[in-house]
Amino acid sequence: MNTHVVRVDIDHAPYDILIGKNLLATATAIGQHLRQPRVAIVTNTTVAPLYLSQLVFALQAQGISCQEIVLPDGEQFKTWESLNLIMDALLTERAERKTTLIALGGGVIGDMTGFAAAIYQRGVPFIQIPTTLLAQVDSSVGGKTAINHPLGKNMIGAFYQPKLVLADLDTLKTLPDREFSAGMAEVIKYGLIDDLEFLQWLETHIDALMARDETLLAEAIRRCCENKARIVAADEKETGQRALLNLGHTFGHAIEAGLGYGAWLHGEAVAAGMVLAAYASAALDHLSAEDVQRVIKLLEKARLPVISPNLGAEQYKALMAQDKKVDAGRIKFILLRQLGQAYIGELPETAIDAALSAGCEVVK
Amino acid sequence: MNTHVVRVDIDHAPYDILIGKNLLATATAIGQHLRQPRVAIVTNTTVAPLYLSQLVFALQAQGISCQEIVLPDGEQFKTWESLNLIMDALLTERAERKTTLIALGGGVIGDMTGFAAAIYQRGVPFIQIPTTLLAQVDSSVGGKTAINHPLGKNMIGAFYQPKLVLADLDTLKTLPDREFSAGMAEVIKYGLIDDLEFLQWLETHIDALMARDETLLAEAIRRCCENKARIVAADEKETGQRALLNLGHTFGHAIEAGLGYGAWLHGEAVAAGMVLAAYASAALDHLSAEDVQRVIKLLEKARLPVISPNLGAEQYKALMAQDKKVDAGRIKFILLRQLGQAYIGELPETAIDAALSAGCEVVK
Repeated sequence: MNTHVVRVDIDHAPYDILIGKNLLATATAIGQHLRQPRVAIVTNTTVAPLYLSQLVFALQAQGISCQEIVLPDGEQFKTWESLNLIMDALLTERAERKTTLIALGGGVIGDMTGFAAAIYQRGVPFIQIPTTLLAQVDSSVGGKTAINHPLGKNMIGAFYQPKLVLADLDTLKTLPDREFSAGMAEVIKYGLIDDLEFLQWLETHIDALMARDETLLAEAIRRCCENKARIVAADEKETGQRALLNLGHTFGHAIEAGLGYGAWLHGEAVAAGMVLAAYASAALDHLSAEDVQRVIKLLEKARLPVISPNLGAEQYKALMAQDKKVDAGRIKFILLRQLGQAYIGELPETAIDAALSAGCEVVK
Repeated sequence: MNTHVVRVDIDHAPYDILIGKNLLATATAIGQHLRQPRVAIVTNTTVAPLYLSQLVFALQAQGISCQEIVLPDGEQFKTWESLNLIMDALLTERAERKTTLIALGGGVIGDMTGFAAAIYQRGVPFIQIPTTLLAQVDSSVGGKTAINHPLGKNMIGAFYQPKLVLADLDTLKTLPDREFSAGMAEVIKYGLIDDLEFLQWLETHIDALMARDETLLAEAIRRCCENKARIVAADEKETGQRALLNLGHTFGHAIEAGLGYGAWLHGEAVAAGMVLAAYASAALDHLSAEDVQRVIKLLEKARLPVISPNLGAEQYKALMAQDKKVDAGRIKFILLRQLGQAYIGELPETAIDAALSAGCEVVK
């Protein structure tokens, strides 16, 4: 299989995403991007036994010295405390301004390592090696880094671009089914936002994709990265259209916070959140009932939750009011004008209520 | 007195420094720079009773709502914990992405508030109102923000530019003598780095400056800000010449860390550190003994310490090896080719030893 290259054209810091096989095991692309033959690899206890020694071996063979920082695994560890573990480790080993941080793992590792790179000594280079489908199509592209706060997800962070992203298909082989599905939620998101043709392509190939056909997966990842790269290059700091990428996320973040981080995977919450956004769009007469069912059906085939937990309308609203997209007290929602055409808008109370009553679990 | 305006021409984010009187009490310039009529003012327990109500009154008169965040005072509070207090307060009050943070205080408040602005919701606007001489001439210009870590000063931070800086001379009236002197250390630094004419001007006017003549002070602050703005505009991220601004800081940081943060003021440590840098430059035959004495005499007239604490050469070297300017294990020093001409270079062990034995307190 050929390696796909997607260029992310951020003004001041363009970089490449490589998508293919055998990227991690050779690590040749990494060596070319270092400012000194020294890296610190941040990973977690799940990924380390699978890929860390392979990566370290490939880097050491190029004469690169490697510090290993292994964190506990899970969204509930995306905290100040974990970030501080990275800082302590870097300072103890005297990592320098030219030392490159490498994020080896999923979205949580990528977000935390990117943020650590943004603030260690006011900024050091970093490289992403996303090992989950979700991270490959979404969180490793675009430079959003963050940690969570008890009062809100991703509330503390920075916009900070990597020097290089390696999306190695080999790492998807070991991905648990539930994580794989969570990644498909973000894949489907790109179709819903502004690529109807891709949505149709996904409907055609969903079964083969779920069977992890590598050629189709590489194609899907490339297409998602291209979509995201285009949106991010036009609006790095999310002053406008980049917010479209948050389709399903305002509801989704409320689900994650309401259930406690880690109970649902991020992608699962986004899937159920996209269904709520679809119901809300239907309440505004943008989508038909058939459109909503089409969204639900595709997500179901990707083995994702389509019914949201019943937190109660008040708790949903309180949690959503904490969202970063709030402006002068008004929550900005990402809604669908039609399938494949998202927009940023406000939701009347009645539409929120309609969406929640259609999309939430019925409490008996 | 007219208000001086110094433009800082950072590529992507130019901004003005206003230097004058009555800036805080009217706060008219602030209103024009807000993205929503809402600010959060971060200050400390020393500055709050002096200036907070005045500022809040002036802002509220313009219809701007103000959140007040008052931290304990001192370099020893420039920590994760204080930063977290700011984050907690902002999240509790649901500060938004367009809410502007205002730093009202000295260098510690400015550095922490700037860093908080850099990372809260991945970046919100901020405005600096430096209330110490040191902050007015140095730490509020150039966008370096940071907190300390037990293993090193300013090790965690970001480059993040303010939208506006107000240097109000009125605030210097209440500044304790020791703090005023500490600010003069940074003023003198600009003369030593690359402005011999300014150094001579300072030698002429040092007594009047120490008597806080407002016209002379405004002139000195303007000149320091212009010097710094020029250096920073050319090298925002300190990949080259910006490091010259760290004259006296490599030794100075070692003094601060060695004695425990807060024992000496930053400016005091920089003063003694500049004397060590001068001795080191003499050991390299760049400066004459008379040059070194000229530096010492000016610092003494500014009532600054010129003799460094005797931490022992080994501890000095160990602490300096933690500096951010270390590259591949080699410490970069800022040295003087002659008075008014600094350069970045390495120091042989013998020159470090010579400087420490000439400049440190003799233990009996």
